[in-house]
Amino acid sequence: MGETIEGVLAEIKFDRDGLVPAVAQQHDSGEVLMVAWMDREAVLTTLREGRVCYWSRSRGTLWRKGEISGQIQLLRELRLDCDGDTVLLLVDQSGVACHTGRRNCFFRAWREGAWAIISEPQIDPKTLYAKAGVAEPIATAGKKDAPGFGPSYPR
Amino acid sequence: MGETIEGVLAEIKFDRDGLVPAVAQQHDSGEVLMVAWMDREAVLTTLREGRVCYWSRSRGTLWRKGEISGQIQLLRELRLDCDGDTVLLLVDQSGVACHTGRRNCFFRAWREGAWAIISEPQIDPKTLYAKAGVAEPIATAGKKDAPGFGPSYPR
Repeated sequence: MGETIEGVLAEIKFDRDGLVPAVAQQHDSGEVLMVAWMDREAVLTTLREGRVCYWSRSRGTLWRKGEISGQIQLLRELRLDCDGDTVLLLVDQSGVACHTGRRNCFFRAWREGAWAIISEPQIDPKTLYAKAGVAEPIATAGKKDAPGFGPSYPR
Repeated sequence: MGETIEGVLAEIKFDRDGLVPAVAQQHDSGEVLMVAWMDREAVLTTLREGRVCYWSRSRGTLWRKGEISGQIQLLRELRLDCDGDTVLLLVDQSGVACHTGRRNCFFRAWREGAWAIISEPQIDPKTLYAKAGVAEPIATAGKKDAPGFGPSYPR
């Protein structure tokens, strides 16, 4: 796969930070689960492992989706848009995609001049992250924004 | 709507360029049509007019989707993700979303070590843009990257 995989990278236009936004969509239902970022290594790792891997901008590390929570995304197909600057990932999501315990991250809708919460958590985030035996977020331990489930939480 | 609309902006985390990525999804079929960017004014204009408006990074202007091609997006709902840094637009797309004449922009799929073209144009881009009586792209006329249908083409 070594040589051909360079073909995928050649067509992707990474931004000045070396990143490209990636939309994760549940392959059968069409539900948009989340949007995150990928660098070159995340794209390569995702294709090689068949499991979605992002780049965490807040933690500055490669982020295998579900590495703590177990809520992984299996890759069904990677697509690229006309300009080559956005990736669409058709995935099979295990459990929930959102760190709040919701199936997808887009649970706020602008309705009648206010934000309405349109879905509830299916799993308590504490349960979700305790599964992996983590008492507190590893990557954020000691950081100002820990504890909690902010952007720096390993999901 | 003046006062309440500030509520939408307060929750959106625009990046260092004042932009937020926006995923446009056909409201009934679930098809992911495209990803573009919005600044504050684009969000406000979209909510006020009920018609999707983006910020064109290549042209540096507000971009009312379909202003040249007539392929507009009517807004059904604007949603925000958990981190507040990505917007999901549920839309009703007139005609095609992609400037290549395809229904959506994600027509390249990575299959067996190569990019496969998985959909064909439904409309010739020349026809699409000639509809509005534009002989050549207005915004790109005289620019190095014109003619053609690159990112700087008003769509």
